[in-house]
Amino acid sequence: MAKKTPIAPGPRDERGVLSARIVRAARDEFAQNGWAGTTLRAVARAADVDPALVYHYYGSKEGLLDAATAPPQRWLENVAKTWATPVSELGRALVETLLASWADDEIGPTLRAVLQTAAHEQSTREKLRLIVERSLMGVSQLGDDERDRLVRSGLISSQLLGFALMRYVWQIEPVASMSDVEVIAAIAPNLQRYIEGDIGS
Amino acid sequence: MAKKTPIAPGPRDERGVLSARIVRAARDEFAQNGWAGTTLRAVARAADVDPALVYHYYGSKEGLLDAATAPPQRWLENVAKTWATPVSELGRALVETLLASWADDEIGPTLRAVLQTAAHEQSTREKLRLIVERSLMGVSQLGDDERDRLVRSGLISSQLLGFALMRYVWQIEPVASMSDVEVIAAIAPNLQRYIEGDIGS
Repeated sequence: MAKKTPIAPGPRDERGVLSARIVRAARDEFAQNGWAGTTLRAVARAADVDPALVYHYYGSKEGLLDAATAPPQRWLENVAKTWATPVSELGRALVETLLASWADDEIGPTLRAVLQTAAHEQSTREKLRLIVERSLMGVSQLGDDERDRLVRSGLISSQLLGFALMRYVWQIEPVASMSDVEVIAAIAPNLQRYIEGDIGS
Repeated sequence: MAKKTPIAPGPRDERGVLSARIVRAARDEFAQNGWAGTTLRAVARAADVDPALVYHYYGSKEGLLDAATAPPQRWLENVAKTWATPVSELGRALVETLLASWADDEIGPTLRAVLQTAAHEQSTREKLRLIVERSLMGVSQLGDDERDRLVRSGLISSQLLGFALMRYVWQIEPVASMSDVEVIAAIAPNLQRYIEGDIGS
């Protein structure tokens, strides 16, 4: 058996390094195996630390899930910046941000972990709802009034979420292997209609 | 405590009635609470039968999930019939079928149970993939060649799935409370573009 890191790691920055390693491992485990298929023991093994250290830092599987599915601050800022794109180019910009987010080796696994564990219980579903409401819908500047704004950004989110699930989580072909260029050409115009088209309301 | 039904129910048709009652209860439990939040005991309670009867009929929680998430035959036929709609009206017909499916008190909970448990493990994800590939994408007659057909029906599925998740599973407002008329006006034209528009491939 590999040598395990002791529970009290000592220096403060080592603690930061270890807890980041645990969160990274947890993200991958939850993303791969969902809530039910993930154990603290497997996370500890993947992070190469003692299971007691995982308990020590995160208290429980719920605490660990919470840390593993917290959207990184730079992603939230990125999404907010995308929404500030001029309206005529927004559809394309949103698809590009989606592709870049999932390609990022911290953000991609976080989004996957959120979607894979969203069914687990009310609190995780609530977190997904908050991400969608605050990050995907909340910062848009579309539409004629508040309801129109929320309907339009809700429709945009529905397309982006459904596509992300098929391409990255469920990996259904040929959607999973379409090139980025194909994805942008296919989806951006549909988002553009939700952004500024007549949606009948 | 309510009187429980004995394990050996006797007549064949009573067995059918009881197992249908168990599957119905299981569908609701999985749809509500996901894989991890559902217990055979809770299903037995909701179906008002002895837990031993659930084990007797379905063997395990996996067996029960399998029965609860099997798409009803009439739904598969319905979806196939929708795909046979003339191309110019297909976008609207697909949205109408989506709305009718989720409003149906057998099909709606089945779809919800599939989506809520899809993260649980490889086999349930595989089932979702099969439903999408065979039922949602498999019977379409679109596009110039086989890949174009699958790309188009994949894009259509991505929009329908994302919308269904936001409206019915995660219940994000105002998407969850849009009227059917609004939903059709908003989404059908986008599907129509995936059906027969220039998607750049």
